[in-house]
Amino acid sequence: MPQNQIQLYYKNVMAEAIGPEHGISQKQFDELAEIVTPMIPKINQEIQGAQIWPDKTKTKFGLLHADKTIAESVMELIVEFKEHCENLVILGIGGSALGNIAVQTALNPYMYNLDPAQRKGPRLFVFDNVDPMQLGSFLDWIDNRLDKTVFNVISKSGKTPETAAQFLTIRKLLLDKLGPDALKKHIVATTDPQKGTLRKIATNAGIKCLEVPDDIGGRFSVLSAVGLFSAAMCGIDIDALLAGARDMHARTSGLDFKQNPAAVNAAIQYHYYNSGKPISVMMPYSYALKDFADWYRQLWAESLGKADSLEGGKVHVGPTPVKALGATDQHSQVQLYREGPNDKVFTFLDVENFNRKIDIGPHPDSAPELDYLSGKELGELLNKEKKATEYALLKDQRPCLSVIFPEVNAYTVGQFIFLFEVTTSFAGALFNIDTYNQPAVELGKEATFALMGKTGPYKKGMTYEQFAQKIREKTKTDRHFIV
Amino acid sequence: MPQNQIQLYYKNVMAEAIGPEHGISQKQFDELAEIVTPMIPKINQEIQGAQIWPDKTKTKFGLLHADKTIAESVMELIVEFKEHCENLVILGIGGSALGNIAVQTALNPYMYNLDPAQRKGPRLFVFDNVDPMQLGSFLDWIDNRLDKTVFNVISKSGKTPETAAQFLTIRKLLLDKLGPDALKKHIVATTDPQKGTLRKIATNAGIKCLEVPDDIGGRFSVLSAVGLFSAAMCGIDIDALLAGARDMHARTSGLDFKQNPAAVNAAIQYHYYNSGKPISVMMPYSYALKDFADWYRQLWAESLGKADSLEGGKVHVGPTPVKALGATDQHSQVQLYREGPNDKVFTFLDVENFNRKIDIGPHPDSAPELDYLSGKELGELLNKEKKATEYALLKDQRPCLSVIFPEVNAYTVGQFIFLFEVTTSFAGALFNIDTYNQPAVELGKEATFALMGKTGPYKKGMTYEQFAQKIREKTKTDRHFIV
Repeated sequence: MPQNQIQLYYKNVMAEAIGPEHGISQKQFDELAEIVTPMIPKINQEIQGAQIWPDKTKTKFGLLHADKTIAESVMELIVEFKEHCENLVILGIGGSALGNIAVQTALNPYMYNLDPAQRKGPRLFVFDNVDPMQLGSFLDWIDNRLDKTVFNVISKSGKTPETAAQFLTIRKLLLDKLGPDALKKHIVATTDPQKGTLRKIATNAGIKCLEVPDDIGGRFSVLSAVGLFSAAMCGIDIDALLAGARDMHARTSGLDFKQNPAAVNAAIQYHYYNSGKPISVMMPYSYALKDFADWYRQLWAESLGKADSLEGGKVHVGPTPVKALGATDQHSQVQLYREGPNDKVFTFLDVENFNRKIDIGPHPDSAPELDYLSGKELGELLNKEKKATEYALLKDQRPCLSVIFPEVNAYTVGQFIFLFEVTTSFAGALFNIDTYNQPAVELGKEATFALMGKTGPYKKGMTYEQFAQKIREKTKTDRHFIV
Repeated sequence: MPQNQIQLYYKNVMAEAIGPEHGISQKQFDELAEIVTPMIPKINQEIQGAQIWPDKTKTKFGLLHADKTIAESVMELIVEFKEHCENLVILGIGGSALGNIAVQTALNPYMYNLDPAQRKGPRLFVFDNVDPMQLGSFLDWIDNRLDKTVFNVISKSGKTPETAAQFLTIRKLLLDKLGPDALKKHIVATTDPQKGTLRKIATNAGIKCLEVPDDIGGRFSVLSAVGLFSAAMCGIDIDALLAGARDMHARTSGLDFKQNPAAVNAAIQYHYYNSGKPISVMMPYSYALKDFADWYRQLWAESLGKADSLEGGKVHVGPTPVKALGATDQHSQVQLYREGPNDKVFTFLDVENFNRKIDIGPHPDSAPELDYLSGKELGELLNKEKKATEYALLKDQRPCLSVIFPEVNAYTVGQFIFLFEVTTSFAGALFNIDTYNQPAVELGKEATFALMGKTGPYKKGMTYEQFAQKIREKTKTDRHFIV
């Protein structure tokens, strides 16, 4: 196996670590192996784009046959845009933002946007909301910097209301301030290869495009052009990211369950969901990795929170992912995690080597009680806090997994992304649901269209106007219930 | 009632809105009123500092008899430090950071730190972790700005390992770079009025102090000097914050359950925890309010996640608070929220008036399908997305509360803080646990001491060295479980 591999450590979910009531016995583990092992070849085909499961949405996990051309097309645009780009602004939401944010937090310095000495590319801003106070503050600042700014609008269809609204706002600003040629020079559109609203607009306006291939769903798209353009613009080594993913693919396609980290990870999560622990906490002990807990939160929730079993019939399944951060949340959540209901499985992200040493200063003479810290190193403290917290959780029979990073770099981050994407595919197969669709998002989207005044037919026998009326009636404020 | 009051809207948790299986019937609501009404006078006394409940930790909710002197002492130090402060750095964790962050995000512009034109005080940085990569990046930047920087170290005892480690590191830096007088000029310590490590150090070094009064616990401390100093330094109207709290106190002390927003809020949360919905999601539809969901997460988890009933005997209670953000999380969590298990109660934070209008630009001719957005206003879109999402959730019988802000300002934020603090007190009384302690945090803290090399007696019959040995054995890596 190549050097610098991330590893999954699962002893502390086993009965021998936390006892038989909450731990997994060897017998249960072997039973999980029996269920999951036959799925491994199927998941391998699924990841390659094959249509394995009956009645399932087209597989949207196309990374493996697309990475090379994606990286090349991204690098071409980098050359074209980097020179006049001091500010890169992502307009996107959900899978078109979370991966970009997570990669940036992981692989660029904390002070990247504030300190020119610490960046190798433009400042990066990601807008994944339509809040007028937030965007307004940004527009006030960017106003006289537009000529040095590039907007990367990311939407498969271009119809997502939030991204469309941002795009129309920015489009008008660029046209008003910089004239009719501004769109070509200041916008990159990441969208469907052929069809859709954004592709159409881009073609007409001469806006350069990157592709969101058909076989990659939003929440699995960070290693496509969706995530790679902003990463490469900001100086991140995207080849190393992709190499990490490929090397993890080799590991997660192994047919031996006990050597396959995605299969083991998914099996353990599945076991706990079915054993009274429906909450899955991801808690990095690393500021750099904190936004990957947020990325995971979408991947896990949107993939596994489903009402329909593939075999038909209604179920309501789906673990609730929760993001946390060590050591910070020791002073916020650990009281609940230890003493509250034993309804959670924890996944820590550990970093062995922080690549930065900060020595804690000596204690003043007046405070000898701080002697134990004096001259120690901050990373040592953080890692020992993790060990101490895990020890405390184990004492209360709370199951703990750890993903161990030798260090945080593009190669290990690429591995991590791929590991959790494949883990999600295994989990979806175990829950027997369609991992790749998100049918429940539609109703809210259509309701937004209706309330914003869209006209014409909504569905059989109902116009958008009628639908809007229905929503207004249902959500009408009843003053009796105001306090 | 004064103008500009926030309000709790609870129709959409009632059976008439979401049906009898998941909704609260009028009869159930009346039963909750019967349970909670007799608690109201007790909670009122508790908030005033009285010792109401037997065997309960000393009440730590001392805001109401301390606010005036607190605000005055804060303003004195503002005058002294503001002039040479271009960067204010909070060193604190948990309740010594979350409130500061939330108030800043709520009441100052998004681009505050990056845009000098948008700030009325110093840049603000809050370090609530001991991550060497994060802090290292900051130290690289601050290095030649130390003479214009003030560090506000916040710790009741001064013994919290994370804050102590940060403090020792910064103390050495200031002494090395700016000489022996630097501590007086560049540090403000917020700590115990008399005793403890930080008070001792501050007294010896001539460091100016603010007080964390005895009767205010960390997670209830944002309206004390803990939160008010950074707020006032950054130009926030702390008198309006405190006025909001006082006016909410008048409302939450009302003896009529149905007119008391804290009592109603707590009763509904309690009902759902006991009805198969142990997850409590707070989802602001406002970027400004997003960090209040994080503040709430500590308040709720650390106060209510408890193992011991006040009547004796082991229980394991405590709802799991989850933070979310609208509209962003519609594309991340709403799939799970609608189709997953019906195990959550939602609290939206609505803002009626965003104080900023952003017009969405016109659609290009090639995309008439975006006509419904053209010329509309971004805040309207955000609020209609909320209504649309709530409509979709109600369709799946998911209970939804809304807290409605007329606008986000210091006065309404002060109300919100106080409302949720008192709600927490009511909830603690309903769960029959000690709202104000956090016994489960201790073991991890002691384990950290031990692993960091503290010596001497830990507890009866065991030294820290022996304890460290025990932890190392228990958490020793077993290679058999690595994959």
